[in-house]
Amino acid sequence: MIPQGNLSKQSLSLHRKLRGKIETKVKARLANARDLALTYTPGVAAVSKSIAKNCERAYKYTIKNNTVAVITDGSAVLGLGNAGPEAAIPVMEGKCAIFKNFAQVNAFPICLKTQNTSEIIKIIKNISPIFGGINLEDISAPRCFEIEKRLSQKLNIPVFHDDQHGTAIVVLAGVINALKVVKKRIKRIKAVINGAGAAGYAIAKLMHQMGANNIVMLDSKGIISRKRDYLYPHKKKLLKILAKNPAQGKIKEALKGADIFIGVSKGNLLKQGDIKIMNGKPIVFALANPEPEIMPDLAKRGGAVIVATGRSDFPNQINNALVFPGFFRGLLDARAARVTDQMKLSAARALADLIKKPSLNNIIPSIFDRRVVPSVAGAVKAQR
Amino acid sequence: MIPQGNLSKQSLSLHRKLRGKIETKVKARLANARDLALTYTPGVAAVSKSIAKNCERAYKYTIKNNTVAVITDGSAVLGLGNAGPEAAIPVMEGKCAIFKNFAQVNAFPICLKTQNTSEIIKIIKNISPIFGGINLEDISAPRCFEIEKRLSQKLNIPVFHDDQHGTAIVVLAGVINALKVVKKRIKRIKAVINGAGAAGYAIAKLMHQMGANNIVMLDSKGIISRKRDYLYPHKKKLLKILAKNPAQGKIKEALKGADIFIGVSKGNLLKQGDIKIMNGKPIVFALANPEPEIMPDLAKRGGAVIVATGRSDFPNQINNALVFPGFFRGLLDARAARVTDQMKLSAARALADLIKKPSLNNIIPSIFDRRVVPSVAGAVKAQR
Repeated sequence: MIPQGNLSKQSLSLHRKLRGKIETKVKARLANARDLALTYTPGVAAVSKSIAKNCERAYKYTIKNNTVAVITDGSAVLGLGNAGPEAAIPVMEGKCAIFKNFAQVNAFPICLKTQNTSEIIKIIKNISPIFGGINLEDISAPRCFEIEKRLSQKLNIPVFHDDQHGTAIVVLAGVINALKVVKKRIKRIKAVINGAGAAGYAIAKLMHQMGANNIVMLDSKGIISRKRDYLYPHKKKLLKILAKNPAQGKIKEALKGADIFIGVSKGNLLKQGDIKIMNGKPIVFALANPEPEIMPDLAKRGGAVIVATGRSDFPNQINNALVFPGFFRGLLDARAARVTDQMKLSAARALADLIKKPSLNNIIPSIFDRRVVPSVAGAVKAQR
Repeated sequence: MIPQGNLSKQSLSLHRKLRGKIETKVKARLANARDLALTYTPGVAAVSKSIAKNCERAYKYTIKNNTVAVITDGSAVLGLGNAGPEAAIPVMEGKCAIFKNFAQVNAFPICLKTQNTSEIIKIIKNISPIFGGINLEDISAPRCFEIEKRLSQKLNIPVFHDDQHGTAIVVLAGVINALKVVKKRIKRIKAVINGAGAAGYAIAKLMHQMGANNIVMLDSKGIISRKRDYLYPHKKKLLKILAKNPAQGKIKEALKGADIFIGVSKGNLLKQGDIKIMNGKPIVFALANPEPEIMPDLAKRGGAVIVATGRSDFPNQINNALVFPGFFRGLLDARAARVTDQMKLSAARALADLIKKPSLNNIIPSIFDRRVVPSVAGAVKAQR
């Protein structure tokens, strides 16, 4: 792994050199007057007229069939927080580059200057005609839930919030294989999720869909339960699927007897001793970035048998990039109008299935495994 | 020229084959984990942090330095009128392809689902962070005037409405050279502009800036003057620069003694005899598309010495594509915050100057002339 200081320096210099990690490219030939007459006026009028008669034909004649908007308001950029739309550009460009590189999906970044929920919904609805799908990105909770929900109702193209669903799908894939290794069944385990933002919320929901029924969740104030004074609406909703009567308290109380810990909040949170409170053969997903909730070696010394992180310099990297390129490839190929829970579960299973014999340090495929995108895409298409 | 029927058929088939005349392309290498760490997380965080400190750095590190939004609301698509945002996609894609092919500018189409003026302004403002310039396109008059004006005030990136300014600049370039051929001076001529929409409005203003002071303009109701009962605000504004006491009536009354006719409304409007009413050595710019106000052979038989059209199958093609690629190349290279009248005049002169010895059938360069983009760009940059 490159030391963080060098990495920053090298990344700045690479960005200065590239001045844009993506660009547009012309597919039509424009070498002479005839090319222009076919591609632009007057020939293009026939195409416009045809689409004017039936909007759906935009899929047949234009970029819409293979183009996704990657949209943020800059309110939750990486670990940097509310950094603003301009600071989000390089992250969105990176995402768009991954979309194209791994799944041949055209993705274009849109960074919004407003953080007002209804304004964002209105804007996305109004810019949607050219896009075949919307990937929401780095929008802070709880606004992201309402934005995604209302857009999914309003638009007839799929809307996917990667920080929620991309994360939940890849985490579930890792959980499926980790449980195979330790020979536990998802219906029987106690799972602890630390962090009740976009990622934690979606992970809890998807794991519950998969059969988990003893999930204990924590936010910055501690274990979420009916006994808490005030809860945000989205956390209140979670009460229905969380363990009915969890212990009260903080992370230590939650970890007692837990089979798996999933951390999606901030780094450097757990000590070696905390792992010892857990049930036998504990699994630790320490996914905070760049600093995990607990470093893998420490977790192992505490007794963890399987450790996963978000980092590429340790085994078992749980990375959204395993999901979103293939997921949208599938949505676009199927011309799906919306994202369903079945698609998410199916994608998670397909991703897990790529590892024929999961083992301690091999529960999830690499993003450079060429089977990943077609598997995820196929799973999504099959559920359309 | 390809017959219109064949052209439509061939254009539909080309579009069906391409399914998108532009696409995105990845400039960064993404071959291994180190590439990902530099291009995306965790390396990209350093770039985001730097931009968060100073928004201007987006020009240094991202696609913003070389990217333009081509934005329409689908209200005035080619000659098709209010065809809607989806029908506008192929036209906007064509424009974006021309931007890249001729001037290496990344251009991305945005087709809006709303035709409400203040909503459009709000949306464009809010999606502006990733763009280095805004090209407004096919937005109907008079809304286009307010949208352009208010956006130019609000944004610190240049806003250019091609139907106005692109047209005005290329027309003025043609006028400059046509007047050289017939040895008349712009201050002395009587000019008739038929059509008071986006193009006519901007042509009148730019020709006046250049020194023309006897401009007679017509809309669908006839000659525009103080004597008319009601005038739209933008036409009222024009009264200041139009001939003070024009004849009353329609096109025939206007053409009496005119040195140049500029048509930017609809085709098949003039007869051979109408040209005979004009002054000696009349110039006819019959720019309606695809059918000109009068066919060139007919105009010539009526006595016109120079005829220009918007079509590629006749000499003297007056085509916006001669302007917008180079104009934005110049704006982006100079990192201009706005478009000025001096830039427009300077671009028109530069374009005209490319024809060393203008003649009856050679008043304007071809879009395939490689000097066009650098000349226009240079002229814009020089006026920054």
